[in-house]
Amino acid sequence: MTHPSVIRPADHAQWRADAMGKSTIYQSGHMLVGLNAFEPGQCHKLHAHAGTDKVYLVLEGEGLFLLEGETLPMRAGDLLVAPEGVPHGVENNSGARLLVMAMLAPAPAQRT
Amino acid sequence: MTHPSVIRPADHAQWRADAMGKSTIYQSGHMLVGLNAFEPGQCHKLHAHAGTDKVYLVLEGEGLFLLEGETLPMRAGDLLVAPEGVPHGVENNSGARLLVMAMLAPAPAQRT
Repeated sequence: MTHPSVIRPADHAQWRADAMGKSTIYQSGHMLVGLNAFEPGQCHKLHAHAGTDKVYLVLEGEGLFLLEGETLPMRAGDLLVAPEGVPHGVENNSGARLLVMAMLAPAPAQRT
Repeated sequence: MTHPSVIRPADHAQWRADAMGKSTIYQSGHMLVGLNAFEPGQCHKLHAHAGTDKVYLVLEGEGLFLLEGETLPMRAGDLLVAPEGVPHGVENNSGARLLVMAMLAPAPAQRT
């Protein structure tokens, strides 16, 4: 992807029938901006990133977000922060697609 | 702001009559997520961050974004990356409010 260019995030979503689809919009030594695409029923199990903060922004649809032992319903436009080391996960319990942008800083060595 | 909590970014916008309004949604040692709120005619002059990448996401409205000598029209949902050191700026040349989310990593010592 060349810069400068205007990016429509949803154009980069990867939808998969078997599991949550992942794609990367931007990655540098400082941060990673990616997409998590959930078909109905798909989820991203509880996990944590040592030394990396994550910010979720729901772009499309709605679902349940897990964070610090709570289950939070989120919908398009909602934002949630998972500070470093805090377990978090997502479940698309809706009947429609759920598209989430994730911003991680610093960029993890391997995206999980 | 306590965590975990679901955040509606627009609720944190600061609109000012005299100049672009700035607010911070989340800040840590790793990143800063903030809002730039532009009334019609307001702008953010060309500037650059040494050692910090910035990602813009338009949440509401439309305007012109300056990057690497180009002027890029952007509207709600559009994303643009200003890598470290690359001059960038924003002008609300529309007749309506323009609300932009900015994610900076690592967080700058002083937000500009």
